[in-house]
Amino acid sequence: MSLIEDLGVRAKEASLKMATLTSQAKNRALEEMAQAIIFNKEEILKGNQEDIKAGNESGLSSALMDRLKLSDERIGDMAQGLLEVAALPDPVGEIVDGWRLPNGLEIQKVRVPMGVIGIIYEARPNVTVDAAGLCVKSGNAVILRGSSSAINSNRVLTDIISKAAEGSGLPAGCIQLVTLTDRESAKELMRLRGYVDVLIPRGGAGLIRTVVEESTVAVIETGVGNCHTYIDAGADMLKALKIVVNAKCQRPGVCNAMETMLVHEAVAEEFLPRAAEALGERGVLLKGCERTMRILPDIEAATEEDWYKEYLDLILAVRVVPTLEDAISHINTYGSKHSEAIVTEDYSAARRFVNQVDSADVYINASTRFTDGNQYGLGAEIGISTQKLHARGPMSIRELTTTKFIIYGDGQVRS
Amino acid sequence: MSLIEDLGVRAKEASLKMATLTSQAKNRALEEMAQAIIFNKEEILKGNQEDIKAGNESGLSSALMDRLKLSDERIGDMAQGLLEVAALPDPVGEIVDGWRLPNGLEIQKVRVPMGVIGIIYEARPNVTVDAAGLCVKSGNAVILRGSSSAINSNRVLTDIISKAAEGSGLPAGCIQLVTLTDRESAKELMRLRGYVDVLIPRGGAGLIRTVVEESTVAVIETGVGNCHTYIDAGADMLKALKIVVNAKCQRPGVCNAMETMLVHEAVAEEFLPRAAEALGERGVLLKGCERTMRILPDIEAATEEDWYKEYLDLILAVRVVPTLEDAISHINTYGSKHSEAIVTEDYSAARRFVNQVDSADVYINASTRFTDGNQYGLGAEIGISTQKLHARGPMSIRELTTTKFIIYGDGQVRS
Repeated sequence: MSLIEDLGVRAKEASLKMATLTSQAKNRALEEMAQAIIFNKEEILKGNQEDIKAGNESGLSSALMDRLKLSDERIGDMAQGLLEVAALPDPVGEIVDGWRLPNGLEIQKVRVPMGVIGIIYEARPNVTVDAAGLCVKSGNAVILRGSSSAINSNRVLTDIISKAAEGSGLPAGCIQLVTLTDRESAKELMRLRGYVDVLIPRGGAGLIRTVVEESTVAVIETGVGNCHTYIDAGADMLKALKIVVNAKCQRPGVCNAMETMLVHEAVAEEFLPRAAEALGERGVLLKGCERTMRILPDIEAATEEDWYKEYLDLILAVRVVPTLEDAISHINTYGSKHSEAIVTEDYSAARRFVNQVDSADVYINASTRFTDGNQYGLGAEIGISTQKLHARGPMSIRELTTTKFIIYGDGQVRS
Repeated sequence: MSLIEDLGVRAKEASLKMATLTSQAKNRALEEMAQAIIFNKEEILKGNQEDIKAGNESGLSSALMDRLKLSDERIGDMAQGLLEVAALPDPVGEIVDGWRLPNGLEIQKVRVPMGVIGIIYEARPNVTVDAAGLCVKSGNAVILRGSSSAINSNRVLTDIISKAAEGSGLPAGCIQLVTLTDRESAKELMRLRGYVDVLIPRGGAGLIRTVVEESTVAVIETGVGNCHTYIDAGADMLKALKIVVNAKCQRPGVCNAMETMLVHEAVAEEFLPRAAEALGERGVLLKGCERTMRILPDIEAATEEDWYKEYLDLILAVRVVPTLEDAISHINTYGSKHSEAIVTEDYSAARRFVNQVDSADVYINASTRFTDGNQYGLGAEIGISTQKLHARGPMSIRELTTTKFIIYGDGQVRS
């Protein structure tokens, strides 16, 4: 049996026990995990230092180095995150639906854990702790597979939290890390049918595509956000300005930031110069369609490729559209089905936009930056699903569960 | 562009229009489809005759020939099925959840169609009409891919129902058939990401495995049923006899029939001879473990392989288990996570069984044969999911939908 398969067997065994734990037992484990993180801070920082050193030597980009680096504060945040997850209501055991059949059978549809969840993720070591906490709370066993650049941090963290969890009574194998960081071990994890119930990739577009292509285990796609804001003919110009500046600039490197702005031709002459000024002040580079460039002649030209791009940077593609329908069609053609907004005071335009745009999160008169489990009030987030199966939009602990039908009979048989 | 990709493009276009249809428009289309089937009965029978002839020539098994063969009655049933689907409540537009955030944003989670659904299925031509009807009702475009043995029947049926649907105002491309029946075209359909939102394979274990392995589109696994009935120490013997006879014999060739019977050692001496007699009278061949054979010395020995088998026939594997836990562990090890039953009057045993058995449908004192969308009162069934993602157990039109977050704002931005 390979190392990965062995992890799978242990996780599967653990998952059957995890599924029957009380909320109290899970919360106690989360609290012990939080304490253990604080208590072992020095050890965590030491492991992290090894990754930082290796990252410096291999010339990791400063953005990646920033994500990798742990501090007292970040370690405190991880522990705090676990306590917040402990405070969330337990989704397991909820009776989602139920009814009685004419023959007297009583059917209950009950929320239960998924079983074994695999998380494949990139640089940030805090994902190790966050994901483990959400899986514990939702009664799942978890197999974590981080990137090689964070392997020492992840190893120390997993060691600490899994010991704390098991020490408080959780089954052995409930939290495990894939310590191999080669491609083959990742592929093996993606094909661990029968042991892993669902895989969630968290990271860039490349990682997500690989997991979707290679995996025979069910996958929840997350994250890639080519988000649009459409300024309608009926837009309030001040709201529009405030929203586009926020959607583009408040934090440009994340998936819910705006990447393309669409402007109705009726307001383009009025709106574009003002938007260009406000965005320009904040260092945003604009790339426009032909009609945009007639109004803003000094900006760069956008190519067909730009409409597909998730810049994750202070760059914005801009297109003037003749109608609302063209805006909707642009979004449905080039978008990644994440988050889109219309700015308008026109009731019918707003209604058409939300009904016809085929994305997970569709806004009227608000910034797309709100697409986030914490912002939505879900308490925590394991990722943002851009697929339609199982979950769509921000996912929290409820999305880490499935349901089971329980049927209560008195000897009924089928005739 | 290949033929399959072309189907995908047309389906995607159609799906955006399907999503905004009223229930009235969809029900009218379903009624027109039903009428068209009755009106074109002769043409359908003629197409079916060609498949029957080809099947005879290629030596198709009599079981397959029976599934393939259409009659006046079966054609009437198809039309009736469409009318029953029209009578179901429309799942699209349901507000599943909703709340207001502290900043005034109002969030609605609304039920919307999946988009494009691909169905890959075997012999039965009625699946063509059933699946198309369920997809229309749930506002989806559908791409159907039946087997080569039914290609003429499927072609005539799709032609008739798609014309009727489009004639009543549904968009072109809402119901399409893959007319190529080679393996390559099926594989291409399984990799049509961006056009197909979910694939549902309906058929034998081999077909389902292929789709899961090859597909890069999200898949809902259906159907394989290695179902168990466990006779507990606390079982009522009469209920137990009635239930096992029903679960095994009422229709042995279907996924919710019992394949293995587990018997607690405390009641094995009393129960097994009576069960063997009742099952034997109905022609059931028993294959037993060592302990079973000590009580029933004349039956065949079961091998390790038998515990995994979905016989779909009048064959039953039998095992004596020392404890309830052993029964649960046997089911979780060898089962296919479909339907399992415990027969007991013991409250705690029943509770442990339903909580610890990791299957889609778990029964107390009833036959597993009830696992079915119609039996559950869901009105119709597209399949029975044995996976945990998205849907688990019998799936109806609601399971052909997803949700979308709609967020109503007044200019909110994130700080």
